[in-house]
Amino acid sequence: MGEFKHFVIVKFKEGVAVDDLTKGMEKLVSEIHAVKSFEWGQDIESLDVLRQGFTHAFLMTFNKKEDFVAFQSHPNHVEFSTKFSAAIENIVLLDFPSTLVKAPA
Amino acid sequence: MGEFKHFVIVKFKEGVAVDDLTKGMEKLVSEIHAVKSFEWGQDIESLDVLRQGFTHAFLMTFNKKEDFVAFQSHPNHVEFSTKFSAAIENIVLLDFPSTLVKAPA
Repeated sequence: MGEFKHFVIVKFKEGVAVDDLTKGMEKLVSEIHAVKSFEWGQDIESLDVLRQGFTHAFLMTFNKKEDFVAFQSHPNHVEFSTKFSAAIENIVLLDFPSTLVKAPA
Repeated sequence: MGEFKHFVIVKFKEGVAVDDLTKGMEKLVSEIHAVKSFEWGQDIESLDVLRQGFTHAFLMTFNKKEDFVAFQSHPNHVEFSTKFSAAIENIVLLDFPSTLVKAPA
């Protein structure tokens, strides 16, 4: 089995300081060793109807599920989640063991 | 600017042969050189209320936006999309230049 993924897509509330939140998330993952890699982006491409109002994606990778569990319960993550939750209008989370079909050359 | 991501989350219709579709997608990306990497998974972890019914995530990575555009218009992709669309009950697409904050060691 490969890596374990934590994927989040978000629509933020009107007027939220999104930059502060993404910077907070960058700080968070830099503090928590269990997070293997982290990348994020803001959709600037796809049709609004296909995005269903979601604008941001956050992708975290862990070596194994246990690392994800450790991340979830880390006090810094719990604290950040409270702040983050207050800023979002809609969110979908998906957590799963990843199947890598085509690896980067 | 970093890589370009094509991120899709899906809820399939009842009774759909999901294995056939994921195998079809694996075949598709193996045929199209523009796709740098591809991974996918089925959520077996998060709370249903947080998933909003979505069960599968598909993540494709391209070296640059132009490669994604080439993929989108590739005849094999167009053909597959028609088949795929018929099988889904709900879908969200996000396409974005990725900001890599924490790289795999």
